[in-house]
Amino acid sequence: MSPERPVFIISDHTGITAEIIGKSILSQFPGEAFATESLPFVDTLDKAEDAVNRIRDAWKVSSLKPLVFSTMTDPAARAVLDASGAVVMDVYGHFLGMMIGELGRPAIPMKGQSHSASDAGAYHDRIDAVNFSLAADDGLATQKYEQADLILVGVSRSGKTPTSLYMAMQYGMKVANYPLTPENFEQPGLPESLKPYLHKLRGLTLRPQRLAAIRSERRPNSSYAALETCRQELDLAARMMADAKIPVLDSSTRSVEEIAALLRQSLLKATR
Amino acid sequence: MSPERPVFIISDHTGITAEIIGKSILSQFPGEAFATESLPFVDTLDKAEDAVNRIRDAWKVSSLKPLVFSTMTDPAARAVLDASGAVVMDVYGHFLGMMIGELGRPAIPMKGQSHSASDAGAYHDRIDAVNFSLAADDGLATQKYEQADLILVGVSRSGKTPTSLYMAMQYGMKVANYPLTPENFEQPGLPESLKPYLHKLRGLTLRPQRLAAIRSERRPNSSYAALETCRQELDLAARMMADAKIPVLDSSTRSVEEIAALLRQSLLKATR
Repeated sequence: MSPERPVFIISDHTGITAEIIGKSILSQFPGEAFATESLPFVDTLDKAEDAVNRIRDAWKVSSLKPLVFSTMTDPAARAVLDASGAVVMDVYGHFLGMMIGELGRPAIPMKGQSHSASDAGAYHDRIDAVNFSLAADDGLATQKYEQADLILVGVSRSGKTPTSLYMAMQYGMKVANYPLTPENFEQPGLPESLKPYLHKLRGLTLRPQRLAAIRSERRPNSSYAALETCRQELDLAARMMADAKIPVLDSSTRSVEEIAALLRQSLLKATR
Repeated sequence: MSPERPVFIISDHTGITAEIIGKSILSQFPGEAFATESLPFVDTLDKAEDAVNRIRDAWKVSSLKPLVFSTMTDPAARAVLDASGAVVMDVYGHFLGMMIGELGRPAIPMKGQSHSASDAGAYHDRIDAVNFSLAADDGLATQKYEQADLILVGVSRSGKTPTSLYMAMQYGMKVANYPLTPENFEQPGLPESLKPYLHKLRGLTLRPQRLAAIRSERRPNSSYAALETCRQELDLAARMMADAKIPVLDSSTRSVEEIAALLRQSLLKATR
């Protein structure tokens, strides 16, 4: 077994940005063994020195040069990390230089602008959106649909709730979701509470086998989770959504993030 | 009024990584006016050419050189963007070269590894965690606390629910939350259902004025939202948490992401 290469995620703030970048980059080297450690809130030069000591200790143990993904806004702290001798990939270190060159003015180091509450308006909107999406989950609060940016429809366990919450959190969008249940299929056409909002309806579907597997985790050996039930509900839902011309996404092999980005794109295109 | 500088977020996948990086970098240049457009799923050379046309059109209109934040895994697509003449800041373009130099092997371009469902195990854990956190929201499902990675406690509207959901989504952690209500303060000590889990309890608090403002949005002019009620509940909760030696975070000026990163760090330190 080859030794694991040490990887450090270092940030003067939450480390969320550095973590995402590290994950993206490391995934392009499948088969390599990495041991990742996160060091968030490294916001003084002393803490940066401590981080360097940890980098050097890990280097000694593994004998492989450590990789560092970092977001350090203070140039002096970046210099401390650089002096570790590790492969330091700092987003600010590289891109700020390009920005300064183009804009012809210095950057103002501000920690954690991307994940703080410092832009109070935008932050409030996001939390507001999360609260909206919780309140309008699973067919609740249909009287609030006027305020929704998007209303997701689909059968039970088609991925509506995590998608709604993710879009609220990430994009500050107010996303309601409405489950299509067997009762909805008894009368023709869309459920009454959805009819006025056709332009902001989007459907989620998935493969019957996948739905049966997901439902089985919740209620094993139930008729609810039976493949035949799933197939039937998905068919009826697909027909209803096609008749109403609701754009539908298949969530079988897509992550919440992918579904969210595709839905946002679809809504933007519709309003262009 | 000075013209807005065009900014493009371009990705061959969701664009979430590029969006976060762009936001981080642009925030270091306060006072500049930027007009940002997202172009996700630019996953063919044709679409990259289309993106370049949009960049050039925006350049003509604003007369300021556009900025591009991108995550393009295909080197050919990166070359197409580079040829636009804009300031192209591509995470892969820069860091992959450093990685290849260090690892001595080529990268394998794989789109959207950071936000796809391709790592099925880790993805399943995250969705599982979201479902757990929804099921164990607001004092529900206390019988599941054994499975929780973290149980948040605090008075109503202290930020427990968004924090729980964010930690589940971002870190795949199972986070329950339990509201401390006036009834809980009638008997001494922690509520019974929390007692066995002291090691995984963390408290949230905030300033009375902030809590009153948040509660007023939900129920204006209620005794629930009155400053005096808020002050009293926060005092009693603070005393209860201090007696039980539960570490407490103040969410008054912190974002959900900051709270989440601090809580994760606190749990990691406790287990070291």
